[in-house]
Amino acid sequence: LLQALAKHNISVLIYEPLFKQFALPADLLHNLTPFSTHNDLSKEVECLISIGGDGTILDSVTLVRDKKIPILGINFGRLGFLASISKDELTIAVDAIVNRTFVKDKRSLIHLDASVTLFPNEAFALNEFAIHKRDTSPMLKIHTYLNGEFLNTFWADGLIVSTPTGSTGYNLGCGGPIVFPDSNSFVITPVAPHNLNARPIVIPDNNIISFEIETRGEEFICALDARKEIVDKTIQLAVKKEEFDISLVRLNENSFLSTLRNKLTWGMDKRN
Amino acid sequence: LLQALAKHNISVLIYEPLFKQFALPADLLHNLTPFSTHNDLSKEVECLISIGGDGTILDSVTLVRDKKIPILGINFGRLGFLASISKDELTIAVDAIVNRTFVKDKRSLIHLDASVTLFPNEAFALNEFAIHKRDTSPMLKIHTYLNGEFLNTFWADGLIVSTPTGSTGYNLGCGGPIVFPDSNSFVITPVAPHNLNARPIVIPDNNIISFEIETRGEEFICALDARKEIVDKTIQLAVKKEEFDISLVRLNENSFLSTLRNKLTWGMDKRN
Amino acid sequence: LLQALAKHNISVLIYEPLFKQFALPADLLHNLTPFSTHNDLSKEVECLISIGGDGTILDSVTLVRDKKIPILGINFGRLGFLASISKDELTIAVDAIVNRTFVKDKRSLIHLDASVTLFPNEAFALNEFAIHKRDTSPMLKIHTYLNGEFLNTFWADGLIVSTPTGSTGYNLGCGGPIVFPDSNSFVITPVAPHNLNARPIVIPDNNIISFEIETRGEEFICALDARKEIVDKTIQLAVKKEEFDISLVRLNENSFLSTLRNKLTWGMDKRN
Amino acid sequence: LLQALAKHNISVLIYEPLFKQFALPADLLHNLTPFSTHNDLSKEVECLISIGGDGTILDSVTLVRDKKIPILGINFGRLGFLASISKDELTIAVDAIVNRTFVKDKRSLIHLDASVTLFPNEAFALNEFAIHKRDTSPMLKIHTYLNGEFLNTFWADGLIVSTPTGSTGYNLGCGGPIVFPDSNSFVITPVAPHNLNARPIVIPDNNIISFEIETRGEEFICALDARKEIVDKTIQLAVKKEEFDISLVRLNENSFLSTLRNKLTWGMDKRN
Repeated sequence: LLQALAKHNISVLIYEPLFKQFALPADLLHNLTPFSTHNDLSKEVECLISIGGDGTILDSVTLVRDKKIPILGINFGRLGFLASISKDELTIAVDAIVNRTFVKDKRSLIHLDASVTLFPNEAFALNEFAIHKRDTSPMLKIHTYLNGEFLNTFWADGLIVSTPTGSTGYNLGCGGPIVFPDSNSFVITPVAPHNLNARPIVIPDNNIISFEIETRGEEFICALDARKEIVDKTIQLAVKKEEFDISLVRLNENSFLSTLRNKLTWGMDKRN
Repeated sequence: LLQALAKHNISVLIYEPLFKQFALPADLLHNLTPFSTHNDLSKEVECLISIGGDGTILDSVTLVRDKKIPILGINFGRLGFLASISKDELTIAVDAIVNRTFVKDKRSLIHLDASVTLFPNEAFALNEFAIHKRDTSPMLKIHTYLNGEFLNTFWADGLIVSTPTGSTGYNLGCGGPIVFPDSNSFVITPVAPHNLNARPIVIPDNNIISFEIETRGEEFICALDARKEIVDKTIQLAVKKEEFDISLVRLNENSFLSTLRNKLTWGMDKRN
Repeated sequence: LLQALAKHNISVLIYEPLFKQFALPADLLHNLTPFSTHNDLSKEVECLISIGGDGTILDSVTLVRDKKIPILGINFGRLGFLASISKDELTIAVDAIVNRTFVKDKRSLIHLDASVTLFPNEAFALNEFAIHKRDTSPMLKIHTYLNGEFLNTFWADGLIVSTPTGSTGYNLGCGGPIVFPDSNSFVITPVAPHNLNARPIVIPDNNIISFEIETRGEEFICALDARKEIVDKTIQLAVKKEEFDISLVRLNENSFLSTLRNKLTWGMDKRN
Repeated sequence: LLQALAKHNISVLIYEPLFKQFALPADLLHNLTPFSTHNDLSKEVECLISIGGDGTILDSVTLVRDKKIPILGINFGRLGFLASISKDELTIAVDAIVNRTFVKDKRSLIHLDASVTLFPNEAFALNEFAIHKRDTSPMLKIHTYLNGEFLNTFWADGLIVSTPTGSTGYNLGCGGPIVFPDSNSFVITPVAPHNLNARPIVIPDNNIISFEIETRGEEFICALDARKEIVDKTIQLAVKKEEFDISLVRLNENSFLSTLRNKLTWGMDKRN
């Protein structure tokens, strides 16, 4: 990959921990500049290449933040809803980068405000915000409000507020629907709800969703994507749409619909 | 009700079949003008009062069509998601009509285009468009497209495309999510799907959804709300957002959230 | 197949409509005796071979009835939960028949009693008994009793009482669980229930389940497997375990667990 | 209660921590014998009265163990699936105790065997055995075997093996079915499964279900009812039916069906 990019005189910044890990051949080095943090990334960077799975993309998002640098995910992992370019498409991907012919898909993020500082500088998620009971606690009583108006109290192990991007992930395992990326919506989905008549709820993403938690325990878990913090039950939490978007790079060949069909193995049910 | 409206010098048009059914006292008659069809209703009419349940509202929608006359539903039936004003609130409702203090909630409709004429002049629904197999037929194979691009083939007894308004109805019984009225979305929900990995899908309501049906039978059922037609399996079908909206009258006292909580008996689970 | 069986001096009875359909070579004829109905089948017949899919097995069950003749299903169709022997295993299957080394899996049936005669001589099902609304009717109100004691009223499009064998079929598409063949249970699963807190219910198969139907229509549908009858709403219906069982032939190589994993494509989720 | 029992010359043993908590009047004392542990309870005890909610019953079960003493649950808590006698029925309950007219409902337990000692002397549950990921871990890969034969690998937050008694609890919130107490079955229900085609599975309770866990973390959680232990991922786990049963006392007036209807608020759906 690096060689291919060098051949086209494309300057490459490389994530420092990764840079140190590999002994790279000298002829590639002049073309590489290491970077470590969000601050080292200039807005002029045209594309951040994430090599791994969807988890690596979620990490990349915390590096890019509001810099509008599109993320190109090459999928070496299992899942690949986000990292939609497979190893076999590497050459096509390099061509697309060189010729700037790739498509940018805007994806909305969800932002967390809390009464104590949580996830400093990274209080957003591409997939979902989630509340969970601690391992050994009984279920939570999650009082939920939309723009300050009471919605419902969920008795549950937890609750997810998923973006469209996250709808095909954890949300789906908890009975939530698939939501298309350009739906301007969030999904509120309870995890193992005690209330028999609780259902996933799709709301416009201009809503502010806030929470108060009641539990016989002292603490619960707050999660943004794979990042988790243990918080005191007196905390006040609210989520809303993040002010900035993330762009995911897609090759012209791969549409959201074909990815969806492929990943969910639609059409592969052997009973058909 | 009629007396109360007469007292405030409000002219009332009355649906002719209803008018004939009741022997009304003479002093009310001067204030009443019967009407029978959509064409008899002037756009100047300020409010159409639907007395009954949600089914009556669905009928009223076919009378109002694109005339932008708000519908005020007084609930004598069971359900009352749409007919949100209870008999006990009649006086408040009359006051609201007299003083024009009611709130109008815009609800989107779904429109059906077909390769043969179906539901002439009424090819729209407030709740949902649905495809169903006939009584005695085996399941359908429903090839589904978004804006002409293939989405998936559902092997199922049927398929629903629900508006947000319809999401709390039939869609909910088939495992679909609750969708808020202002979500600009449709939900595609299969009925008794054979595919294990089929899931309800939320899409923006600017999509055109089209269908091709395969079945060992000759016919299947097309439904717009409670209206049904038996169609030949060679028919081409497409649904999209209807060009006009319907306005439902709501009293200030009743929000969508409180109706939702009340109708789904949230908070009434005795196991809590 | 016939040649292979003839070689081993196995006498073969052949279903008459099938016999007439094919022009069979003369050297096979001496070995074949045609049969048409249940009554032509002797209890001495060691094995009935069903060639087709699961639907063909369901038909064979109505030929075998209480004669305890095991059914060997060779799968030429799509599904194959019941017809568990694939075309490629034909030679192994013939060997198993010749050597009587096959395994017989006992499967319970569900029996229907009704206040008018329905499905004469065939009032049983291998997969499920089902109640359905007619295509153009509104939903049914299905009052359900266990051994005469009131269980619940389901407001729904229909209701399934599934045997363990049927649990992987229609029941699964309506949200019911997989039930193992030797569970001595039935599953009661509503179809598109209006009640939000209705859930599939597993009961011991020594229960008698009876129904009373309320509907604004006049008729509804009763189904035993793929066989359907339109009935008047005043009918009284009760189902219980059938007195006789059916035996399905299985090759030693194929266990229920491997069939289950294979048919449900467990382990083939591409997101893993 | 104590006074009522004394009046009928019924000797009462009282749980020591409770005994110390209340200053009881002297005239009751001669009739009371405190007890602290399972060993203090004689098999001759005719009935253990559990005052509280379902949680208190679960605690009582660990006191009674295999002594076949029936447990009478008086419901002061919220839930009351197990503690089926309400405060208002106290007098009827005392009469039933005095006259020995109560009904004993046998409930099966689930027993846990593990490669290291877990839950010493209390390795059984009335509701369910559960595996859970730790709060901060990614999902588990749960390899599941029936009698040593591979069933499936569940990618999930956890997995429940529920008794019929537990089926109306946590199992129900995770999409599992209601299972009748006399069904001789267990339900295997994944918690937030990643596999789209995973479904709850009902198996006869004479199966041995064993597990191997794969996780990127080091530990996971094992639970028997509300009791939890953190275990190392190398542990071997197997569950089966416990050798002894528990008897729950029921008044003649309350059937399982009426409790079920009442607790799940069937018939109270306001949309009906």
